[in-house]
Amino acid sequence: MPRQAYVNGRYQPHSDAAVHIEDRGYQFADGVYEVVPVYNGILVDEDLHFDRLDRSLAELQIEEPMSRPALKLVARELMRRNGLSNGFVYMQVTRGVAPRDHKFPKDSRPALVLTTRQMKPHSPQVLAEGLKVITVTDQRWDRCDIKSVSLLPNVLGKQAAAEAGAYEAWQVDGDGMVTEGTSTNAWIVTGDNKVVTRDATHSILNGITRITLLELIKAEGYSLEERSFSVAEAQEAREAFLTSSTSFVLPVTQLDGKPIGNGHPGILTGKLRHHYMDYMQTLRKSA
Amino acid sequence: MPRQAYVNGRYQPHSDAAVHIEDRGYQFADGVYEVVPVYNGILVDEDLHFDRLDRSLAELQIEEPMSRPALKLVARELMRRNGLSNGFVYMQVTRGVAPRDHKFPKDSRPALVLTTRQMKPHSPQVLAEGLKVITVTDQRWDRCDIKSVSLLPNVLGKQAAAEAGAYEAWQVDGDGMVTEGTSTNAWIVTGDNKVVTRDATHSILNGITRITLLELIKAEGYSLEERSFSVAEAQEAREAFLTSSTSFVLPVTQLDGKPIGNGHPGILTGKLRHHYMDYMQTLRKSA
Repeated sequence: MPRQAYVNGRYQPHSDAAVHIEDRGYQFADGVYEVVPVYNGILVDEDLHFDRLDRSLAELQIEEPMSRPALKLVARELMRRNGLSNGFVYMQVTRGVAPRDHKFPKDSRPALVLTTRQMKPHSPQVLAEGLKVITVTDQRWDRCDIKSVSLLPNVLGKQAAAEAGAYEAWQVDGDGMVTEGTSTNAWIVTGDNKVVTRDATHSILNGITRITLLELIKAEGYSLEERSFSVAEAQEAREAFLTSSTSFVLPVTQLDGKPIGNGHPGILTGKLRHHYMDYMQTLRKSA
Repeated sequence: MPRQAYVNGRYQPHSDAAVHIEDRGYQFADGVYEVVPVYNGILVDEDLHFDRLDRSLAELQIEEPMSRPALKLVARELMRRNGLSNGFVYMQVTRGVAPRDHKFPKDSRPALVLTTRQMKPHSPQVLAEGLKVITVTDQRWDRCDIKSVSLLPNVLGKQAAAEAGAYEAWQVDGDGMVTEGTSTNAWIVTGDNKVVTRDATHSILNGITRITLLELIKAEGYSLEERSFSVAEAQEAREAFLTSSTSFVLPVTQLDGKPIGNGHPGILTGKLRHHYMDYMQTLRKSA
């Protein structure tokens, strides 16, 4: 069976899956999304993702397309049809189809799209060598806390990274402080072993992996500060890493061409990755 | 014949016109658009719109989907099929379809969508009474000069206006200065009859109607300043108006509940609207 997608009530071949040209997601970026990791058949931190989806929708006054239990069933059915055990479920909700007009339409129904993708484990090379990161100006709008599909600046940042031979671009605000990567949260470990990541305001997307890792860090008793850090502080840090729903925890070993610490993945970074992988192992399949 | 749309090489019923769910316009707002007014069967300032489209595409490194002559033919054929004589042609170009990944795909082809819409002349009431405008914080990204579909903050601003019983929201930057409306450029006329509109930087979309009206203002010898103005200066102005490809020139008579000037459409505003309408009348059909 070819890979399937779910679009507005129908399971259909992914290759044919389409939305109307006047879907407001296409014309206005008027929609939100979630990427829920699937690890050994389990939707990781599923309810945290649904909580964030609900929040994004509420901030934009888009109705929920269906109840949470129904959405969970759709995600599971699509995973079953696609034989997905490791990878992610992508879900996107837009304000729906209406004749083009900026203001909210009176009678549109939210559109819902789900896809899945298989992913392989991260390569041993990435874990052994770490990732290169560059910095770019944070050009985004003021509400990065909403997980909207308004991702054009993120696209441009990620492309700048790729062209520089790097994996990610850390975005830097007008005060010279790192906000976050284009699709990941940014972390450093200071010389005295404090884990530092930007506090969750309107300036960053509060990653679910970020939230869970913060809990694990607290539970393990590591020293932690949620605050801004500058590019210079990051370059002088002992370690650096990034988190996301598909990266989990990955070491960063170079920032704008400068090695972080000794240029090798950090020891604490490695421990935190293991804590996170252990955490995912302990999750049980829920109904 | 039902209204038709043009989507990636095919003319088809507008109601069925669709794009793939992994079109980057839908998942990343990775695309640009133009709205070209059609007045008495003529595409108004067509080449200026195509120039801007080319610039938007170049800024985002998206290939042109076809040559300009070919695109002009498609626009005319769609107008013919839809019997369009007054309204607009909407055209959208995205980076195309590719498996979801922020950075530019290596082998996607740009996607092209064209639609048309009939429009009636502006109501005598609007021209007689003018429009209400509110102000909102400009939440947009740093490259508003690119006419991208990354329009979510514009949507939220226009909705705020609608909920306040206004037609438009003028967006205000961190210095308290008006940038532009959510889909229109903002203008005032000072007490000494100077026409003022914000200079075209990365902070505003340089409207084609704005460009043409600037030429008409210069040709007619009116006094002109391209500079920022504050909300307070606008509220104390003698006149105010807005421009866009579908509004042409429309009077603004109230800003955040305060009447502009005597609360009636301004005399110079009326003259500028007439100059603009006369200009459109003089345009000849081109091949």
